[in-house]
Amino acid sequence: MSLEAIQYRRGSLSILNQLLLPDQLRYEPVDGVERAWEAIRAMEVSGGSRDPEGGPEPPRGRPPSRLRRPQVRGAPAIALVGCLSLALELAAGAGPVGDVAALEAFVGERLRFLLTARPTAVNLGREGQRLRDFMRRRAQSPGVTAEELRESIIEHIEGLLEKDREDNRRIGAHGARHILQRVPEGGVTLLTHCNTGTLATAGYGTALGIVRALHAQGRLARVFCTETRPYNQGGRLTALELLHERIPATLIADSAAAAAMRDRGVQAVVVGADRVAANGDTANKIGTYQLAVAARHHGIPFYVAAPSSSCDPALPGGADIPIEERPGRELTHLQGLRLAAPGIDVWNPAFDVTPHDLITGGIVTEHGVFAPGELRRALGERGAAGGQ
Amino acid sequence: MSLEAIQYRRGSLSILNQLLLPDQLRYEPVDGVERAWEAIRAMEVSGGSRDPEGGPEPPRGRPPSRLRRPQVRGAPAIALVGCLSLALELAAGAGPVGDVAALEAFVGERLRFLLTARPTAVNLGREGQRLRDFMRRRAQSPGVTAEELRESIIEHIEGLLEKDREDNRRIGAHGARHILQRVPEGGVTLLTHCNTGTLATAGYGTALGIVRALHAQGRLARVFCTETRPYNQGGRLTALELLHERIPATLIADSAAAAAMRDRGVQAVVVGADRVAANGDTANKIGTYQLAVAARHHGIPFYVAAPSSSCDPALPGGADIPIEERPGRELTHLQGLRLAAPGIDVWNPAFDVTPHDLITGGIVTEHGVFAPGELRRALGERGAAGGQ
Repeated sequence: MSLEAIQYRRGSLSILNQLLLPDQLRYEPVDGVERAWEAIRAMEVSGGSRDPEGGPEPPRGRPPSRLRRPQVRGAPAIALVGCLSLALELAAGAGPVGDVAALEAFVGERLRFLLTARPTAVNLGREGQRLRDFMRRRAQSPGVTAEELRESIIEHIEGLLEKDREDNRRIGAHGARHILQRVPEGGVTLLTHCNTGTLATAGYGTALGIVRALHAQGRLARVFCTETRPYNQGGRLTALELLHERIPATLIADSAAAAAMRDRGVQAVVVGADRVAANGDTANKIGTYQLAVAARHHGIPFYVAAPSSSCDPALPGGADIPIEERPGRELTHLQGLRLAAPGIDVWNPAFDVTPHDLITGGIVTEHGVFAPGELRRALGERGAAGGQ
Repeated sequence: MSLEAIQYRRGSLSILNQLLLPDQLRYEPVDGVERAWEAIRAMEVSGGSRDPEGGPEPPRGRPPSRLRRPQVRGAPAIALVGCLSLALELAAGAGPVGDVAALEAFVGERLRFLLTARPTAVNLGREGQRLRDFMRRRAQSPGVTAEELRESIIEHIEGLLEKDREDNRRIGAHGARHILQRVPEGGVTLLTHCNTGTLATAGYGTALGIVRALHAQGRLARVFCTETRPYNQGGRLTALELLHERIPATLIADSAAAAAMRDRGVQAVVVGADRVAANGDTANKIGTYQLAVAARHHGIPFYVAAPSSSCDPALPGGADIPIEERPGRELTHLQGLRLAAPGIDVWNPAFDVTPHDLITGGIVTEHGVFAPGELRRALGERGAAGGQ
């Protein structure tokens, strides 16, 4: 059983408080749209909104009250929690009864309200628009009742959660198969960066989905996970997920990655993506580029695992991806402790761009594994046939 | 005025308590051989002995009493503090008076005692042997008095401190000149790793000596210093030294180094060395190899700065350098705070080996800058003529 960022069954929604990890494993209930609004807003206020892979500093000692409020991390999870909170209300009978048009207006109003928690949340906006489109078509079906509309909206939202998990399982299967093409027998040793597992997605994970798939097939020897400074998502989150499922894992300092490739038998590097441009250039957590350079030097295939929704055909290349610079304090302080000389200038980019020619393994989507140069065509065709 | 790890003038010796940095700048007096023994021993007991570039964890909040004891970090500094504490005793009149043979026996006994603090301290053992040889020759000079012998021993020891500083100044000058050969005008942007400054040497520094030399010539635009996990020597010590001298410096996460090379105009990488083998393969702080790989990828010259005493002609190559693995706790905890999921396996090598073909700038010694392939011959000839 995986750790899950979101726990949902009809009538119940709760989210893991990741700020308390790895010390405490606590789920916070989200009882409706108001509470989801707060959870989405909390990350915005604490600064996490600008770093979908990051999050605010974990607490030192007893967490201050703001850390005991639920917070949602990761763009897909934000969209899901928002929509699921609405499904929860609808299942509990909220909103007008017996009037299709009034129900449609109520749902539209709740979606608009959710988006005010974080106007820049692209995924939430997109899923909200898709839900409105779905609702419109369904409301126009001849003879549909308000109760039928209500049920189909709930099912549509529940389907989003299932689709995210299913897409990730497909990413895991495609990636594992591709890696095993080069390793006909025995266990594979991987290296990964940051957190791309169930704690960053609705379930299973992207790059960690590949790790899970290989482990499930009995073909994973070991995965090295980098600490991932400055937020330590590797040490706090990835290590926790892997331990939880008894997947053989070893934590290393970010700067030990090249030595692990040379001296510890790493056979492939798998990372996630924040955004993938049309030519395959990929923005991901700072350090990804350095790993890709080291993998190239050692002749180790480098894979980017990302759902097709992270691939943006409107972005021609990596130069068009803006890289946010985060406050220096993230590097110089940890939970109030000072780690560096006071007053030192800091350069703290949240992400870096890995050029497509270093993505030598391929880009792993739910539709298959594609060479960066194939991505535009493959996703343009909706990739139904899968990649290599 | 530089921060100094060791402050000495005749009659007075004190050492900087680096465990309190960057929060407190405090020098601890060393009033004689007994106290020096404790300071050398303290690093041994706290685990620092196995990591000459490292040191035990800095304290959290109010330092426990063991952290208020002076400790010496770095193999050259250990040898110097030991010998200087003996000079201090001799200058204060310790030991037999008026009898050359008795004085010689007393000094030999004190040196033997010092070495029991850390039997593996190679530099201390070597300097002790040289001092004995010097003393023997001097004692055999016709007509030498015990007081003359005493004075010449003190001067010999004081000369060690001056030689370390002078060698580092030469390293700085040679390295700066070599780098400027490729940059005819304007400021140079460098990147360095770990701490190789006055806090790791008796003064001026090795790789940081090059940074200082360029700055003194008005030719340094900026130096990026890596945080250097897991001990954060870059953030705690290098950043402090550079700030102290108003040298333009920017701290980055270890994993941002390749991005800094590509996106921030780094023109050369300068690092120190723990040991240099005869073929130029170099063992240095974990992460050095990864930086060398990234520098090669970007066509940026990579320099190793080390006194010739760190070059070991008896070691044929890097494969002969044993790499110590340090406790995982160094990576998973910081001053008692837990940074990673409890129970995660850790691989924490203290050093890595950079193969000579990645040292594209050269090896910078007090005798000049040498291509790795030239090193053996150049140092065999005692390098008086200097390198390129």
